[in-house]
Amino acid sequence: MKEEYVIGVDLGGTKILTALADLEGAILERSRVLVGEVKDKDTILGKIKETINQVTANAGIDLEQVVGIGLGCPGPLDIEEGLIHHTPNLDLDNVNIKDELSGLDTPIYLENDANAAALGEQMFGAGQGADDMIYITVSTGIGGGIIIDGEIYHGVSDGAGEIGHHTLDPASAIKCGCGNYGCWEALASGTALSRLAQDAVEADADTMMKDMVTDSSEVDGAIVARAAEKNDGVALDLMDTIAERLGIGLASLINIFNPSRIVFGGGVSNSWSLLEEKINETIAERAMESLVERVEIIPAKLGSDVGVAGAIATALAQVKNK
Amino acid sequence: MKEEYVIGVDLGGTKILTALADLEGAILERSRVLVGEVKDKDTILGKIKETINQVTANAGIDLEQVVGIGLGCPGPLDIEEGLIHHTPNLDLDNVNIKDELSGLDTPIYLENDANAAALGEQMFGAGQGADDMIYITVSTGIGGGIIIDGEIYHGVSDGAGEIGHHTLDPASAIKCGCGNYGCWEALASGTALSRLAQDAVEADADTMMKDMVTDSSEVDGAIVARAAEKNDGVALDLMDTIAERLGIGLASLINIFNPSRIVFGGGVSNSWSLLEEKINETIAERAMESLVERVEIIPAKLGSDVGVAGAIATALAQVKNK
Repeated sequence: MKEEYVIGVDLGGTKILTALADLEGAILERSRVLVGEVKDKDTILGKIKETINQVTANAGIDLEQVVGIGLGCPGPLDIEEGLIHHTPNLDLDNVNIKDELSGLDTPIYLENDANAAALGEQMFGAGQGADDMIYITVSTGIGGGIIIDGEIYHGVSDGAGEIGHHTLDPASAIKCGCGNYGCWEALASGTALSRLAQDAVEADADTMMKDMVTDSSEVDGAIVARAAEKNDGVALDLMDTIAERLGIGLASLINIFNPSRIVFGGGVSNSWSLLEEKINETIAERAMESLVERVEIIPAKLGSDVGVAGAIATALAQVKNK
Repeated sequence: MKEEYVIGVDLGGTKILTALADLEGAILERSRVLVGEVKDKDTILGKIKETINQVTANAGIDLEQVVGIGLGCPGPLDIEEGLIHHTPNLDLDNVNIKDELSGLDTPIYLENDANAAALGEQMFGAGQGADDMIYITVSTGIGGGIIIDGEIYHGVSDGAGEIGHHTLDPASAIKCGCGNYGCWEALASGTALSRLAQDAVEADADTMMKDMVTDSSEVDGAIVARAAEKNDGVALDLMDTIAERLGIGLASLINIFNPSRIVFGGGVSNSWSLLEEKINETIAERAMESLVERVEIIPAKLGSDVGVAGAIATALAQVKNK
């Protein structure tokens, strides 16, 4: 019998990352194309197929040796059907990706990108060995994936895991992209950090961040982190503010889920060492001691590979379930 | 073969309710004893055995026909082991209830009381047919049970479902029994409603509630509800405040879990008709539309039977799993 493989496709708004892996998840070949300006269905589908052909050709294998293709995509989705209800930054609304890629004659497994990332960390990264795990990704927004008994929890219509959209502060006047006010995402994401820092710069606060940009709008989370690493007091305070807000939400999730592990990913997790102490202090204050004792909170391990690793994990989880 | 039965024991702080049911869950016999002043282990265990003997004797069956005994108890617990870590109002800390009742020669299934109630509503009440369901009980506190794929989600150490202890308002100065400030339970429970009403009465607000009590400390949720039903403006406003706070927390749970149903029980749910509109309005404002469309929020059906029905459901779920 010929060797069997899986493919993972990380379908992002700016690039498509595709990788071929063996059934242990070891990545053998990769392909990457930019989405570019033309984002219509046929162009995107063409690029997906192009990357799939490329990784199989480079590895010298036939497509029929690929037993599953996992596809991570921003939602909302209908996972069973393979239907993309809506996805930001690509013109794929109401596209049935299983039907569209049926010509490949290989099972296609669609998954929400944050869920796929959760599965990727659980299979290959910081979540290994944790069957009841919450993955949180904090960058421009806050996303998440909930793993229960080793499997993604999807909810009744594949919409579960929107942990970034639990209300952190009902009195907040800050409107979230989802329409709610005071969401965790609106107050504790990288975007929230940038906004707080921009406000500080505009208010002429005593901070080196003013000298690191030519315009306050250029201040982002990375700049705050760099200034904080240099002991800039304003930047350190801002990191503490975000860490406290992250800790409040994490404490709630600990009390609700009693997870064994929380894996913290996304761009903001690069500043884990600046956030860790205040996050843990806040959790200790707000979550139940018996539950805090049982949870590990650790940064994600897969970095920028998490999307494609998650897509591979999505395929592997389904292939192995058969 | 002789008929088979299960027994459910609802172990409360003031009374023990025990019922015998057939394998369909139909209750055939009941027994009820007050806990009284003496709450030590031997006394409580004696009363549990007494009620079990009573229901079997009244039904004219042998204990060996009872294939499982479900026991609902306030936690924290170790469900697999049968260990009660701590339970309020009874001296059963660190008691292994499976060991203590092993003389009955029937499998004992321990469950947290809120989880048991969730299972009871799911099997016999308002949760029937809903595999992804959240049960919320709002009375002196806020408790909950999370049902995923038809089973209770326990978390890594049987502590999941403490939905009442997610932070609703991080700026709140109101300390919760769990030690956190601004918990959902601290701000939206029957106790929170009583406190708001007592404050209004003490501030000499223009409300009939002043004439319904001899002392402000007597104002409780039931009095607010009665006044609100008579169109008392202050009472109606207080119900709206609580309904909004309940709605904020429910919106968060909807975004996190994407459940098909939320079953709303506990004493405060008796005022569902006074709360429903504002709860639904708040959810519509704060939760994602695609998720709101897929969830039904309905009052619980089992009333004061929910504890013992939940204990029966706990036994049946295990017996049928075998």
